[in-house]
Amino acid sequence: MGKDCTDDMITSSANQQMKHLSQLMKRAKERKKEQVFVVEGIKMFQEAPADTVVSVYVSESFLEKPEHEKCLQGYRYEVVSDAVFREISDTQTPQGILAIVRMPKYDLSDLLQGDHTHLLILESVQDPGNLGTMVRTGEGAGITGIIMNKTTVDLFNPKTIRSTMGSIYRVPYLITEHLPDLLDELHKENIRLYAAHLKGDTYYDAFDFTGACGFLIGNEGNGLSDEIAECADCYLKIPMEGKVESLNAAVSAALLMYECKRQRGEHNENMV
Amino acid sequence: MGKDCTDDMITSSANQQMKHLSQLMKRAKERKKEQVFVVEGIKMFQEAPADTVVSVYVSESFLEKPEHEKCLQGYRYEVVSDAVFREISDTQTPQGILAIVRMPKYDLSDLLQGDHTHLLILESVQDPGNLGTMVRTGEGAGITGIIMNKTTVDLFNPKTIRSTMGSIYRVPYLITEHLPDLLDELHKENIRLYAAHLKGDTYYDAFDFTGACGFLIGNEGNGLSDEIAECADCYLKIPMEGKVESLNAAVSAALLMYECKRQRGEHNENMV
Repeated sequence: MGKDCTDDMITSSANQQMKHLSQLMKRAKERKKEQVFVVEGIKMFQEAPADTVVSVYVSESFLEKPEHEKCLQGYRYEVVSDAVFREISDTQTPQGILAIVRMPKYDLSDLLQGDHTHLLILESVQDPGNLGTMVRTGEGAGITGIIMNKTTVDLFNPKTIRSTMGSIYRVPYLITEHLPDLLDELHKENIRLYAAHLKGDTYYDAFDFTGACGFLIGNEGNGLSDEIAECADCYLKIPMEGKVESLNAAVSAALLMYECKRQRGEHNENMV
Repeated sequence: MGKDCTDDMITSSANQQMKHLSQLMKRAKERKKEQVFVVEGIKMFQEAPADTVVSVYVSESFLEKPEHEKCLQGYRYEVVSDAVFREISDTQTPQGILAIVRMPKYDLSDLLQGDHTHLLILESVQDPGNLGTMVRTGEGAGITGIIMNKTTVDLFNPKTIRSTMGSIYRVPYLITEHLPDLLDELHKENIRLYAAHLKGDTYYDAFDFTGACGFLIGNEGNGLSDEIAECADCYLKIPMEGKVESLNAAVSAALLMYECKRQRGEHNENMV
C-alpha cells in the first residue's frame, strides 16, 4: 500500500494548517480550547496512542529516511517543505515529524489507587523543562498521578512535552482551578500530604511513605505559598550540605518520589 | 565615602569593556584563556569570594535600588546604561549587576578526602542547565568534587553558572583532557567507580557507598561511551516503572549522590 498522502506539499508557513499548528504550539489557550497538543520527533510520535492522533505533518526529507514507512504506517499525513518545517519546528535540529494529538482526560478517581496512591502535587512550577522532567521521573517512580494548580506552566507546552520523553501519554494528571479545595478532598480520602518546606525539621527519609501519600512542590523561586503549605499534614526537610539553601524543584521531587518507591519496596525482588 | 566609581557611564555596547564582557559570556575559549568567568545577579555576585572579583558592572537603575550600597561596598564598579546592560545580559529580566570573576583552581588532591571521597564524574553532559543543577545538588549531597571530560558543556557557561545557584564557587572540580587516565588514577586511590548503565542488574540502593566512591554519568542522549563504562567497577540500575527507559541525567545523579549521603548517615543526628 505505502503512502496515504495528499498530493500537494505545503510550501508556505502562511498555509492555514501551518498557521493552526503554529498557534497550537505557541498558545496554551488555543490548546485548551481544542483539547489537543502538538508533539514533535519520532519517539514522541511513535509513543502517542494511535487513536489520539488527529493529524500528522512530515518534512520532505523525512520521507527519504529509511524508517519513514514503518513510522507512518496506517496514518494519513501531510508533507511540508523542509524550509517551512524548520520554521514551524520548536527544536534546533528537527527530526521532520510533527503531530496534533488529543489530550488524555482524567478524573480525580483515575489518580487514586487506595493505599498505593502516590501523588505529585505542584503549585506554580514555572519552568517547562522542570515540569516535563517531573512527569518523566514520576512515571519512573511509579506515581499514580500528578496534580497542578492552574498557575503551573502548561503541561502541553512543547518544551514540557519534550522533557517528558513520552511520559505525558501515561501519567494521569489533573489541573485544578482551586488547589486548596482539591487538597481537602485528598484529606478526606486519607491521603497524607507532605510539603518540602523550610519549617520542616525532620528529614524526608525518616517518614513512612508506605501508605497513600502526596508530595507538595512549590514554585522554583518562592517555594509553596503559605496557603498551600498550611494544607500539608507534615513538613519535611531534604538535608543539604554546604551553603545550599534549596534544591532544584525537579530534583527535590525526584528524591521524594524515589524515597517513597524505595520504602514501598517495589523493586526489592531484584536486589542482590 | 560611598561610591567608588569612574565618572563616565558606558552608553554603547561597542565600548571595549562591554565587548570584552560579551565575549567572555559567549565564548568558552575566551574564558579559558583568561581564566575568568562572568556572573550575573545579586545573589551570584554576593556569593563570589571578594578576592576573586576582577571587575563589576552595574546598570543605572541598579544604583537606584536601596540595596545597592551594601552590595557594592568595597568594590570599584562601572556604571552601564540600562539599554546597554539589557543588551549584554544573558537573562530576560536583568537584576542590573554583572561581574568578572577569576576561576577557582583545584588539583585532583583537592577533590579527594580519603574514605569520605564522593565524586560525580561526567562524560559529555551537554545541557548547561543539567550541569549547573548537578553542581548545586552535588554540594547539597556533600560531594567532594566533580570531574568532567573536556567534551562536557563548559562549566562557566552563563546558564550553567546560573543553575548552580552559587555552588560553582564551592564545589571542587577538575576538567580532564583524558578521562580514562584519570579514572585509572582514581582506581589507584581505591575509589570505587559506579556507572548507571543498562547492563546493570543490581539496583543502586543495594550497593554499599560508605567507602570512597565515584558516580559516572553520561551524555543525556547516549549515556556513557563503552570506553568509559568499561572503567567502572560496578554497573548499577535505577529502577523505573512504566515505559520509562532512562531518567534525566541530573535526576539520576541526584538519586545516586543522595543515596550515598543517606547511607553515610551524614544527616542522622536530626532524625526523629
